[in-house]
Amino acid sequence: MKKFDAMFHGGDVLTYKGLYDGEIIDFSSNINPLGPPEGLYRELMNNFSTLKSYPDIKYRELKKSIGEYLKCNSENVVLGNGAVEIINNFIQLFHRVVVFLPSFSEYEKRGNVLGKEVLKLHLNKEFRIDIQALNETLKKGDILVIGNPNNPTGLRLKKEEILGIYDIVVQKKAFLLLDEAFFEFSQEDYDSIELLKSWNFKRAAIIRAATKFFSLPGIRLGYACTSIDMSKEYKEIELPWSINSMADCAGRYIFKCRDFIEKSKVYINGERKFLLKELSKLDGIKVFYTESNYILIKLLNWNEDFVFCYFLKKGLLIRKCSSFEGLDKTYIRVAIKDRKSNMKLVDAFKELESV
Amino acid sequence: MKKFDAMFHGGDVLTYKGLYDGEIIDFSSNINPLGPPEGLYRELMNNFSTLKSYPDIKYRELKKSIGEYLKCNSENVVLGNGAVEIINNFIQLFHRVVVFLPSFSEYEKRGNVLGKEVLKLHLNKEFRIDIQALNETLKKGDILVIGNPNNPTGLRLKKEEILGIYDIVVQKKAFLLLDEAFFEFSQEDYDSIELLKSWNFKRAAIIRAATKFFSLPGIRLGYACTSIDMSKEYKEIELPWSINSMADCAGRYIFKCRDFIEKSKVYINGERKFLLKELSKLDGIKVFYTESNYILIKLLNWNEDFVFCYFLKKGLLIRKCSSFEGLDKTYIRVAIKDRKSNMKLVDAFKELESV
Repeated sequence: MKKFDAMFHGGDVLTYKGLYDGEIIDFSSNINPLGPPEGLYRELMNNFSTLKSYPDIKYRELKKSIGEYLKCNSENVVLGNGAVEIINNFIQLFHRVVVFLPSFSEYEKRGNVLGKEVLKLHLNKEFRIDIQALNETLKKGDILVIGNPNNPTGLRLKKEEILGIYDIVVQKKAFLLLDEAFFEFSQEDYDSIELLKSWNFKRAAIIRAATKFFSLPGIRLGYACTSIDMSKEYKEIELPWSINSMADCAGRYIFKCRDFIEKSKVYINGERKFLLKELSKLDGIKVFYTESNYILIKLLNWNEDFVFCYFLKKGLLIRKCSSFEGLDKTYIRVAIKDRKSNMKLVDAFKELESV
Repeated sequence: MKKFDAMFHGGDVLTYKGLYDGEIIDFSSNINPLGPPEGLYRELMNNFSTLKSYPDIKYRELKKSIGEYLKCNSENVVLGNGAVEIINNFIQLFHRVVVFLPSFSEYEKRGNVLGKEVLKLHLNKEFRIDIQALNETLKKGDILVIGNPNNPTGLRLKKEEILGIYDIVVQKKAFLLLDEAFFEFSQEDYDSIELLKSWNFKRAAIIRAATKFFSLPGIRLGYACTSIDMSKEYKEIELPWSINSMADCAGRYIFKCRDFIEKSKVYINGERKFLLKELSKLDGIKVFYTESNYILIKLLNWNEDFVFCYFLKKGLLIRKCSSFEGLDKTYIRVAIKDRKSNMKLVDAFKELESV
């Protein structure tokens, strides 16, 4: 099995703390800078006593709340200790895993850990799905995992692409797992849950999570929407009580925070435009368009290690991307944060150019 | 695969809420009535901001704290989203699973889910390990899972038994997983971690958890101690960030609460003596000795369903035991709780006798 470790994920500020005097700004993990929603901490506090009992093993209230947010029935909802456990559990239910690279490393890793055959296809030059390769590769019993928007590329499938891919999946009797942990950051010209509802999600599941948009990576709340049959299969294999009581409580609160949701969408959209525009002006980098809250950047004059250290010296932690299969040491990824931080990032890039 | 569902676990108060006017006392899950430790909620509150970041993916501080509590090095510590995830992860690393019945249903279930061969041996009439059967069955590459104390029997291995079992395990090149989620409730005439430390835990792991003794089933914090080699293998397959930030915070606080720990041990010991004595006086039941905070009871005149409903009518939720393979409908399990609740339980049994 290929070796994976912590370096394959962002957010590891603790490791680099000693290398900078002051607080490091973390551009390596992609968390909404406005969250979590107001009032959540008070809500959690008022529910501390729930820690003394097991959470409802069926998570009835939580699933109801998620169903309302996702606009599906609570019977369609499955849960996980973060999106990554949902990915793991779905992969466990299938024979082979098909992934497109570059993408989130855990798709392949969980396949390997669970002893599944992992088929690695490559996104095309524009980082889009190669439909022909998919059609040639996908077989009955496969699970196809696609990030939408995809991490680290930031691109989202178009509505027609999803429908085309789902067509192939149905035809081959395979299964489509859309990892939409970054859904709310994208311009919602379509909602894949609405899109696949007409087929009762028969051969599909769509993962969402509280982690990124609701700024709660520490609370571990992932959820997904799938067919009732598949949700039954999922329940047969999932670990009991995998959602802790604080995540259970949060999941019954945050989706009602409509102001927070609206404000965040507008804010991230504005900052995305700002950062894309400012970074695009610079010569030493190529900036990829994004529909998420992070930006993939190709370094034209340096490698990721040089830039990583250069930025760390300024208190900025970025994500090196050579650990993503399909990318090399000339790529980095940066999160879209608040304006002040984003300006620091732009300034650091400008200074880098003059080195 | 055999069907398992929520009925295979205690603590499901929500399902029965509508059947009783008032608050149900939950004797079906075995939680220390004195906890959680004082000051924990304040500590959690002060650390709410950690929810906004990913927990340390290596859990450095948490492992240090657990290592100090367990008296092993932090390199020996592995973690899980409750003990049940640790059981799952260890089973994943081996070929066949050997269990003794009756015991916690998840040992078998996780083996089934992970596609392992599960060998089911039976405890002898006194609910003790059948060493001869073990010797004949155990093979290279097997993982032997034993509850210590065992759930639902309440019995704990004697020091010599552990050493004898470990001898067989080493000889056969197998692995011993001791599930000691109830460790602190037992009379600590020996500590298996201390015992197996001399062999550097080479073919063993000992699971403990915050769930039962620290009254934190909702926080999901399991931990175990094993060899450094095995902990490396474990880290290769575990899910990232499986411990949420509140559990991380709790695990850096609760083990310092020496007063709570001492007080709880004395209290549970007293209540255990009280309940064992009072229940033993009754004619319609046979009470099994326990070294944990729950008591296995054989019903001499009724079946579990009748007693379950009878107690529920009085607002007491007990654990039916026919779902434990190796027991039938004449067994129930009750938790040891605070004196007032325990007296209610005794009274209910007395009334049952006069029905």
